[in-house]
Amino acid sequence: MQTPTAAATAPIDMPEIAEALARMERCLRAVGCERVPLDDAAGRVCAEALPARLDAPPFAVAAMDGYALRWADADALLARSGVTRAGDPIGPPLAPGTCRRIFTGAPVPPGADTVVVQELTETVGERLRILPGAEPHRHIRAAGSNFGTGTPVTRPGTRLSARDIGLAAAAGHAEIRVHRRPRVAVLSTGSELSRAFADGQAGQILNANRPALKALVRSWGGVPLDLGIAADDGAALSVALSRARATAGIDLLVTSGGASVGDFDLLSPVLAELGFEPAFRKVRMRPGKATLFGRLGQLPVLGLPGNAVAALVSALLFLGPAMSRLAGAGWAEPSPERAVLATPLPATGPRTTFLRGRLGRVGRGVPTFSVLADQDNAMLSGLALADALVLRPADAPPAAPGEPVAVLRFDLSPGF
Amino acid sequence: MQTPTAAATAPIDMPEIAEALARMERCLRAVGCERVPLDDAAGRVCAEALPARLDAPPFAVAAMDGYALRWADADALLARSGVTRAGDPIGPPLAPGTCRRIFTGAPVPPGADTVVVQELTETVGERLRILPGAEPHRHIRAAGSNFGTGTPVTRPGTRLSARDIGLAAAAGHAEIRVHRRPRVAVLSTGSELSRAFADGQAGQILNANRPALKALVRSWGGVPLDLGIAADDGAALSVALSRARATAGIDLLVTSGGASVGDFDLLSPVLAELGFEPAFRKVRMRPGKATLFGRLGQLPVLGLPGNAVAALVSALLFLGPAMSRLAGAGWAEPSPERAVLATPLPATGPRTTFLRGRLGRVGRGVPTFSVLADQDNAMLSGLALADALVLRPADAPPAAPGEPVAVLRFDLSPGF
Repeated sequence: MQTPTAAATAPIDMPEIAEALARMERCLRAVGCERVPLDDAAGRVCAEALPARLDAPPFAVAAMDGYALRWADADALLARSGVTRAGDPIGPPLAPGTCRRIFTGAPVPPGADTVVVQELTETVGERLRILPGAEPHRHIRAAGSNFGTGTPVTRPGTRLSARDIGLAAAAGHAEIRVHRRPRVAVLSTGSELSRAFADGQAGQILNANRPALKALVRSWGGVPLDLGIAADDGAALSVALSRARATAGIDLLVTSGGASVGDFDLLSPVLAELGFEPAFRKVRMRPGKATLFGRLGQLPVLGLPGNAVAALVSALLFLGPAMSRLAGAGWAEPSPERAVLATPLPATGPRTTFLRGRLGRVGRGVPTFSVLADQDNAMLSGLALADALVLRPADAPPAAPGEPVAVLRFDLSPGF
Repeated sequence: MQTPTAAATAPIDMPEIAEALARMERCLRAVGCERVPLDDAAGRVCAEALPARLDAPPFAVAAMDGYALRWADADALLARSGVTRAGDPIGPPLAPGTCRRIFTGAPVPPGADTVVVQELTETVGERLRILPGAEPHRHIRAAGSNFGTGTPVTRPGTRLSARDIGLAAAAGHAEIRVHRRPRVAVLSTGSELSRAFADGQAGQILNANRPALKALVRSWGGVPLDLGIAADDGAALSVALSRARATAGIDLLVTSGGASVGDFDLLSPVLAELGFEPAFRKVRMRPGKATLFGRLGQLPVLGLPGNAVAALVSALLFLGPAMSRLAGAGWAEPSPERAVLATPLPATGPRTTFLRGRLGRVGRGVPTFSVLADQDNAMLSGLALADALVLRPADAPPAAPGEPVAVLRFDLSPGF
């Protein structure tokens, strides 16, 4: 992609990425909620602070195998009075001067205030001696010390992890209110695109963007709706967009193609005719300049470039946060991390620039970044091999191996 | 969890984590394969190198909007001969001394070897002049430059990303062979555990591990099978384990509880009676010492601690790689990354130690790690709030703020 000339860009509002993201954020709201079984809730976005329905543990329990006793008796020889195992009832109070064999998770008998591990005890005839090294009040988990009845155990707006699911189950819940999955419609534009491979037919160009974007929507917690391919033709595009606007239950429309400034890039004018309210029509980034966002009536529309690499880079930057916001998980922009260059980088042009590359590891230090030789935006094969993008500011000078850089790691955007 | 004394551990083989993982790796094989529609393949583990069924692009195409010409003619005034748009047929060869208006993605006419962007041209009457700055052979993507027919576009053993899906679709495929999802049975042991919350019943202890482990299995690409809770009773446990062994189609059995050295931890003896071949029965780590692994007949069995925090830490270290291997994605151990301490750490005991904490960011530098105050292994509520574990070697001295440490980031194990 060539850097824009003043003549080509002057009349077009082309915000920086941060500004474009801020405009987008203001246009999107979280979708509604539903109750789901806890078994189906992993990865869903929590919509309620579930209060614990019980104390955990429900009573003081031993945190180790050993003997329960009153610390005041620790210098005496203690009479043994029974055994308590995990799952046993609390049982009778501990009489002064006695101890009770106890196992991890078992209720501590009333009166006992300390558990001493077996290794710090010694048997003397029928009795037990506590050895030096034992400490008062050890190895007892107080009732409610994990959580007490009423304590909130889930946090609205967070994606439910296995840890959250375990905690909600331990707190007495079998269901949870979550945001429903955002429904994201995907429309490709481009007369050159064939719908499916046809054996023996010459000159086919197959659409990478629609399948890739549907996969992203699914991996990022949404439900994709496939609106197919619209021809690069005003009427066809207008029909496809109007149909999307009229379809109930679409939370976001994502298009690819038709959004740059060529004579046959019709998306922007057709949207304008339909009353589109743009938040931005370009972004000062490379690749991905031809990214637009706004509202068509109530329908948020994200227009991605037609170019497969540009479409996916732009999806990482814009579709990700949009879906996170729609899903109720708040606004989550991809977060650059630090890496050290293993290969030189060229100077950048007047836009924030992303170059594909691979991360390496030297021990447990900061990862290294090696840029891939071919940065052609049509080379999806190269993007598929990459595992990170280096983020370079506009007008940056060349950079040498060893210099620190900011990278977007694909492993932090699972499914990308 | 107390550090083990020589008396308690001497007779027990307790390998380091790395050795335990190596033994586990040798016992696990990838599960079989199935064909799925590309639309359902995101996140699945690829089992074939799909060859491209066509060239991409199918012919040389313009990479920019501009004019196609023969570079040998670039000093002449060129006659205009038509227009080619994306989606148009290749059309007639370009006559010497002429140029053709061309748009991004359009086939370059035979004979043309260069595309010059419009900004580097000037109209002179009916003709076109090429301005200084234009370069030969620019802005043309050769046929097959993205990939040629027969080029493999997917890599067996990798999890299919949206980029891979897009590439496979662009290469003419609508289906792909992937490994089926591993089926992982989950069994909890513990007489103290209630199956479900019962209103008004005192003293309930609800099981966090089974729901959390099922969620992990699902998040990590497997299909969980819930085998319920077995009592801490040799006969009940034996029946449950024998039933699991006899159930067709289980790729891995994961148990929690019953695996430490207390008098009522029956898992190991019951497994031994059933002919279990252990790879290890303990691991030199804290929490998570009470982790065992081996084979019960053909069935791999991973025994996790009963303690919720220990069970989940051990799952992160052992269940993750096991599932990755079963799923066909190779052996993938969690990879520690570097952080800088924001809080002091105590000295560690004789085992590799994991402490829960939270990562912070200072700009784009290495993240900071703040340890959580309460490291009690029964405190699942604390683990739920953490977003990383610091990994401390055995017998490490205390560490001060500012010192570098190794951390396991939860965001790199999605779903954890």
